[in-house]
Amino acid sequence: MSIFFNAFHAPLGAHSSFTLGCKGRSGGLGLEMGTPACENVYIGLENRDNEKFKLLPFFEYEESESYRYDHDSTLNDEDKKNESFISVFKDSSISRDFKTGSDTWSAEDLTFKILSAPVTAVDPTTSSVEEQMFTYCPGVLVELIIDNRECSKERKAVFGYTPRNSTDSLNIIHDLPLGYKGLAKGRSTGIFTNDKDAIPASGFSAEDIIKEEIRENYNFGLGTTGLLQFKVPPKSKKSFKIAITFFRDGIVTSGEETSYWYSRFFKTISSVGIYALNNFNKYKQLTADIDKDFDSPKLNSAQRFQLAHSIRSYFGSTQLLDWDNSPFWVVNEGEYRMMNTFDLTVDQIFFELKQNPWTVKNELDMFVKRYSYVDKLHFPGEENIYDGGISFTHDMGRENHISRPEYSTYEQFGLKGCFSHMTHEQLINWVLCGALYIKKTGDINWLKDNKVIFEACLDSMLQRDNPDPKKRNGIMSLDSSRTLNGAEITTYDSLDESLGQSRNNLYMAVKSWAAYISMETLLDGLRSVTCKEQAVKAAITIESHFNNEGYIPAIMGESCDSKIIPAIEGLVFPYYLGMFESVSETGQYGSLIKVLKEHFNNVLKKGICLYNDNGWKLSSSADNSWLSKIYLCQYVAREILDIKTPATGVDADNAHMMWLLKKENLPYAWSDQMKSGVAHGSLYYPRGVTSILWLDEA
Amino acid sequence: MSIFFNAFHAPLGAHSSFTLGCKGRSGGLGLEMGTPACENVYIGLENRDNEKFKLLPFFEYEESESYRYDHDSTLNDEDKKNESFISVFKDSSISRDFKTGSDTWSAEDLTFKILSAPVTAVDPTTSSVEEQMFTYCPGVLVELIIDNRECSKERKAVFGYTPRNSTDSLNIIHDLPLGYKGLAKGRSTGIFTNDKDAIPASGFSAEDIIKEEIRENYNFGLGTTGLLQFKVPPKSKKSFKIAITFFRDGIVTSGEETSYWYSRFFKTISSVGIYALNNFNKYKQLTADIDKDFDSPKLNSAQRFQLAHSIRSYFGSTQLLDWDNSPFWVVNEGEYRMMNTFDLTVDQIFFELKQNPWTVKNELDMFVKRYSYVDKLHFPGEENIYDGGISFTHDMGRENHISRPEYSTYEQFGLKGCFSHMTHEQLINWVLCGALYIKKTGDINWLKDNKVIFEACLDSMLQRDNPDPKKRNGIMSLDSSRTLNGAEITTYDSLDESLGQSRNNLYMAVKSWAAYISMETLLDGLRSVTCKEQAVKAAITIESHFNNEGYIPAIMGESCDSKIIPAIEGLVFPYYLGMFESVSETGQYGSLIKVLKEHFNNVLKKGICLYNDNGWKLSSSADNSWLSKIYLCQYVAREILDIKTPATGVDADNAHMMWLLKKENLPYAWSDQMKSGVAHGSLYYPRGVTSILWLDEA
Repeated sequence: MSIFFNAFHAPLGAHSSFTLGCKGRSGGLGLEMGTPACENVYIGLENRDNEKFKLLPFFEYEESESYRYDHDSTLNDEDKKNESFISVFKDSSISRDFKTGSDTWSAEDLTFKILSAPVTAVDPTTSSVEEQMFTYCPGVLVELIIDNRECSKERKAVFGYTPRNSTDSLNIIHDLPLGYKGLAKGRSTGIFTNDKDAIPASGFSAEDIIKEEIRENYNFGLGTTGLLQFKVPPKSKKSFKIAITFFRDGIVTSGEETSYWYSRFFKTISSVGIYALNNFNKYKQLTADIDKDFDSPKLNSAQRFQLAHSIRSYFGSTQLLDWDNSPFWVVNEGEYRMMNTFDLTVDQIFFELKQNPWTVKNELDMFVKRYSYVDKLHFPGEENIYDGGISFTHDMGRENHISRPEYSTYEQFGLKGCFSHMTHEQLINWVLCGALYIKKTGDINWLKDNKVIFEACLDSMLQRDNPDPKKRNGIMSLDSSRTLNGAEITTYDSLDESLGQSRNNLYMAVKSWAAYISMETLLDGLRSVTCKEQAVKAAITIESHFNNEGYIPAIMGESCDSKIIPAIEGLVFPYYLGMFESVSETGQYGSLIKVLKEHFNNVLKKGICLYNDNGWKLSSSADNSWLSKIYLCQYVAREILDIKTPATGVDADNAHMMWLLKKENLPYAWSDQMKSGVAHGSLYYPRGVTSILWLDEA
Repeated sequence: MSIFFNAFHAPLGAHSSFTLGCKGRSGGLGLEMGTPACENVYIGLENRDNEKFKLLPFFEYEESESYRYDHDSTLNDEDKKNESFISVFKDSSISRDFKTGSDTWSAEDLTFKILSAPVTAVDPTTSSVEEQMFTYCPGVLVELIIDNRECSKERKAVFGYTPRNSTDSLNIIHDLPLGYKGLAKGRSTGIFTNDKDAIPASGFSAEDIIKEEIRENYNFGLGTTGLLQFKVPPKSKKSFKIAITFFRDGIVTSGEETSYWYSRFFKTISSVGIYALNNFNKYKQLTADIDKDFDSPKLNSAQRFQLAHSIRSYFGSTQLLDWDNSPFWVVNEGEYRMMNTFDLTVDQIFFELKQNPWTVKNELDMFVKRYSYVDKLHFPGEENIYDGGISFTHDMGRENHISRPEYSTYEQFGLKGCFSHMTHEQLINWVLCGALYIKKTGDINWLKDNKVIFEACLDSMLQRDNPDPKKRNGIMSLDSSRTLNGAEITTYDSLDESLGQSRNNLYMAVKSWAAYISMETLLDGLRSVTCKEQAVKAAITIESHFNNEGYIPAIMGESCDSKIIPAIEGLVFPYYLGMFESVSETGQYGSLIKVLKEHFNNVLKKGICLYNDNGWKLSSSADNSWLSKIYLCQYVAREILDIKTPATGVDADNAHMMWLLKKENLPYAWSDQMKSGVAHGSLYYPRGVTSILWLDEA
């Protein structure tokens, strides 16, 4: 099990991350990226004998940039001799303490502690400017501690990086207030310190800089590597504060023009660095609180690892924008960078409702205002002659492009597989998210404003069940006209039919049932009755497909006979809404719950929905299992269905942790889609915060 | 000889280029780059049978982006069958007409004509807003002509590209005025047309888009390739106008905050596209005029090719910035992107003085105001105990970073080779550029304002000759304290000592002589006399080193015995200043001129300063020859020394053209530093506009 995995260290709402942990040129300062920055990062200390340098292993040697200018020069003997001037600490001398709020590397006399705070997005419409500055400051703080107490020589320590190629140059910032030092790439990423004796330097390589004897040459303007150099007196221990910063001002999106919310307060990258350093102690204290809050003794170590890892990944995807003077909350979709993908929102909601429920409202309102549409419907093989109803788009844009009203970036017309529409799924997602938001916040005004939307959603669900009320069975039977004569898909777009097809899908059916009972309490009179009727019908339909072998086929009444874990996924919603009776084996839907429990117990077996390593396999017919959904279903199995076994707990947790720590997966921080434990899609992904549910387990 | 070489098609002052011509994924829309963008560019037409598509060969097939989302899908048989759906035109069916103002590709029924206009940078302080908009509009226009007169079917034509990865998404622009269509990458590069029937489309690949049958899917938001699709009716010929645009607003530099001058007039990339298209006819007419102006019948075809190629490369490096409401003219240094490298300015000045002399004044004023300094001096091996004087930095910054006052990005302390200081050379460059500017413009006010600078320059040159007036010999003997105990270098930084060392250098000595006689006419009384005395001393010193073998060693009086062509380089300045007598064999410096002519005739021989292919070799001891300097020295040899032979003319021109068209050099447009005809440094470079001098030859 390697400690050398990349993890996000991300400010909140800045869509950026100082990613570090995987060996080689793999981490770095990434601004608006779907991957780690793949920059060399230098964290090192002079040996006690002052002769050589040791660094943490987060860089690769490269041919000096100088050869591009002076192509007649070649490595001479002295250069070769010096190749070992810089070496890396031995693995055995390096340790790591990885938590939600802090990530601490130690090697011999060096400690590098990265702080990740805050974790709660304050509401810009109700908080003070100072709260917003503190929360959305696009910087990450680091404490570099050098213990030189056992050495009688002054030693040099360094922190720096080689920014990725871009149009803008690495540069030493010369106009900082007294006592601050800093380096930046253009105006977009940078590192700062407030150590008064620190010397910023730029050169063709870290080695060139460290060996440079002429101080004036630290300013070399062609340098592609930047280092902050610190001096540690003999027989002393020193702590240096460093701010790692990100900045993009002006208009940052196309489609519609928006800016970063933080650019209201910060006008330069220097101002970010200075602010972060000035508030170091406050951030550090908060970090300690966060570690305490999330590092729950109720969790096993594999859970704690996954919880911290997934929360960090979520933050790197967040982006708080200023759209016509209103906040626009965006969660980007990891490597794909789609904005506010709705079928991720419905998973991430448990985290957002715990930390900052206003973001959920912000997302739901935008889906209503700009990203809702009305369609027609068809039965398989027939024409789109039936009225549909309201639904919502898959997402709101991609890579800083805000998509046009009523259209996502993802969904295409005329398909039945990946990239088809998710009309029914997103419709249900709005209902469920809305209900959870109301439950969590008690925001009655929002309910009042949106009752008409809930009602339209109910009408839309009814039509998609069957335009003829007499023929309804509680689950989806018609596909949207946006698929033309194709078929809708679910969030599980890259799985096979067992989870990918929306119509008659078991996963969707249970979620639909959950949506109906959620709305039952929100709507009045006849509408509420209809919800109840539909929930009952859905339950009956689902139960009716429970077969003699003890499971419900993934696609009910069609030809797909796969066995799927997410049959139980939808139970999370009524439970979270406090409708415990509805998910009880002895309640009004007791027979449904019993059937689902039996289904689950029968499929969570090796050869079906368990890998040999005890990892969960969402579908018996697809080698593509998603950690975010597994986390959620683990919670449902343990907390709602009361199946507390090693298979639903520690055995699975350990297997999933080992997946994330497989060699192939180390560069991508937290990833979702795993083929036999190897990440193949949804890399560097925010969705894993479903793990937050674990903290609620009894 | 290949027609498939990359060439710049660059707007003026926007530091950007639509580069095209080299096969493969080699050209594209580059904004602020030192290399071609390396994007796929699609220019194609449906076959007459409507079954397949042929494109110009400016792209590479790549694995579809869709696999990143849907990793279970693989190429199926149908895909494989369709791999040949798109093919490229045969080389033999493609022709190219390459000129200064236009670059026209023809293949079967398709013609793709790229217009490059304007070529004169209007002075922002004296021109109208409309003139500035027209001049600095950051767009390049293209005419796509399809001749479908012999075909009875409607055919589709396309133009588009796959933007390089960046943080910002490819997007179809939906809010354009009626009749305009466009696609962009974020807000930074884009393509537009005003053809009312054109359909913009986005998809995972050009093939996906062309085959797409559902019009709604042209809006696919995950698309990484964008195409403008045109319809050509049967039996007709149609011309489509396309604007290729670049845009960056807000603050674009670090060090000091500046913006693009054009961002005063253009607030979005769409406004650039619309403006360019609306002025299509005016640009096209201007292009025709440019082709007429520069396509001189006096030049041979190899010269015409090199003149057009180098002018284009220059424009891609130009960048007009708005610094505190004043224009700041920047020429970036090709692949290195240093800003206003002074030893390039002195070469590019002949072009700038012809087209837009105000830019020279702008550069010289900035060198005085911010980039001058005063040093101390030392003799080799001694201390820096002598007063120096004024000089100027090598450059003003790099890659959008404006360097701090008095310091370049390039120069380091304590060296004697590459990256050392060019103090003496830049001092002389200021004198020569100032003199040329006054001569060309008659700007007496500027002379009056700067007489004190010329005088300081003279004093500085005298000190660098020898602090003891009695010991002066007219050439440099002391090095700057900025080298510490090292030595200054010349612009020829990556050559060996023969041209790289500044002190006692023959090339520098003749330039110093030129600087003295230039100042002689600008200064008064005793100062003028001193100039004359120094010029005479310099001439005598140079002549005194003419040896029995008929040449002057590159470093006079030291150990370097190389033979160099740039001995004659400095003669260009008095000649350009109209001081014909000074460069005449029968004038006051007749013996110097005779000696230099004999030197030149004796070194321009195979085995010395001629390669076997008749290309010029600047130094007998270094295989590193620079085309920009060769062009200049060719002019001096022919026009001033009256050596008009095939070796100074067509034989050399042909050899140098063949260098540029060597396979290895094709991607880099015009490059400067050639090792045996292969570009090894100074790629994609602006300095070749010394070729403009050829138009002045009698």
